Amino acid sequence: MNDSTIESVTVNQLPIMRDPRGALTVVEFKDFIPFPVARLFFIRDVPSGTTRGAHAHFRCRQYMICQNGVVRIALADGSKEKTIELSQGQGMLVEPGIFATETYLDAGTELLVLCDRPYEKDDYIHDITEFMNYRKK
Amino acid sequence: MNDSTIESVTVNQLPIMRDPRGALTVVEFKDFIPFPVARLFFIRDVPSGTTRGAHAHFRCRQYMICQNGVVRIALADGSKEKTIELSQGQGMLVEPGIFATETYLDAGTELLVLCDRPYEKDDYIHDITEFMNYRKK
Repeated sequence: MNDSTIESVTVNQLPIMRDPRGALTVVEFKDFIPFPVARLFFIRDVPSGTTRGAHAHFRCRQYMICQNGVVRIALADGSKEKTIELSQGQGMLVEPGIFATETYLDAGTELLVLCDRPYEKDDYIHDITEFMNYRKK
Repeated sequence: MNDSTIESVTVNQLPIMRDPRGALTVVEFKDFIPFPVARLFFIRDVPSGTTRGAHAHFRCRQYMICQNGVVRIALADGSKEKTIELSQGQGMLVEPGIFATETYLDAGTELLVLCDRPYEKDDYIHDITEFMNYRKK
């Protein structure tokens, strides 16, 4: 049984240095990322209001960073649910065993995700019923 | 003496998966990043035509990813110079001892940089004359 709970999902405000030349956001991994990062992906050009994700991982640990706009993230751990809105410059830890569904609220919303594992096709649970059964084990 | 040369700067096209829900770009570190990543930063909201960077590192290894727009990067290793234009979805390895100056060509240009070290104030060479002398050692 995977015992990650909604309570393990934590949000951080990342430091942003703004000046007339632009905005620089820093992520010192030792301060925010509790795993060695093996992969990243980033999502952009998403029509506003679009929902993506809608899966849990068996093993993969993730840290999601909103680079622009606002992402609404619906989270479920099999017994509790919670919704978080992640704004520009905010990061969020998502442990395996958490079902997460992201809605890109604004045009130009961009999400960057850091992962502790390479892509593994068999690490995804897309079916919510299968997920609920998995979490009951 | 640091012996990184212009030739060590290599550009990769990263895989982008596009569909009507947006564009997802993946970076499997084992395929592109020849160091464990300890820090990242990303730069956005840069007025087009603005120049940033203009320094070398003594120790820090970096991998720069253009997330949007086009960045023109002027590179120098103390004996040779080269200019590369990095477009959306392209990544580039920059070893220590390479002086790099980035010009953000388009409005909305965004750069993501992966680093093998935490921020260290004394790791920067901002002065080009100091850099040239350092590379002659």
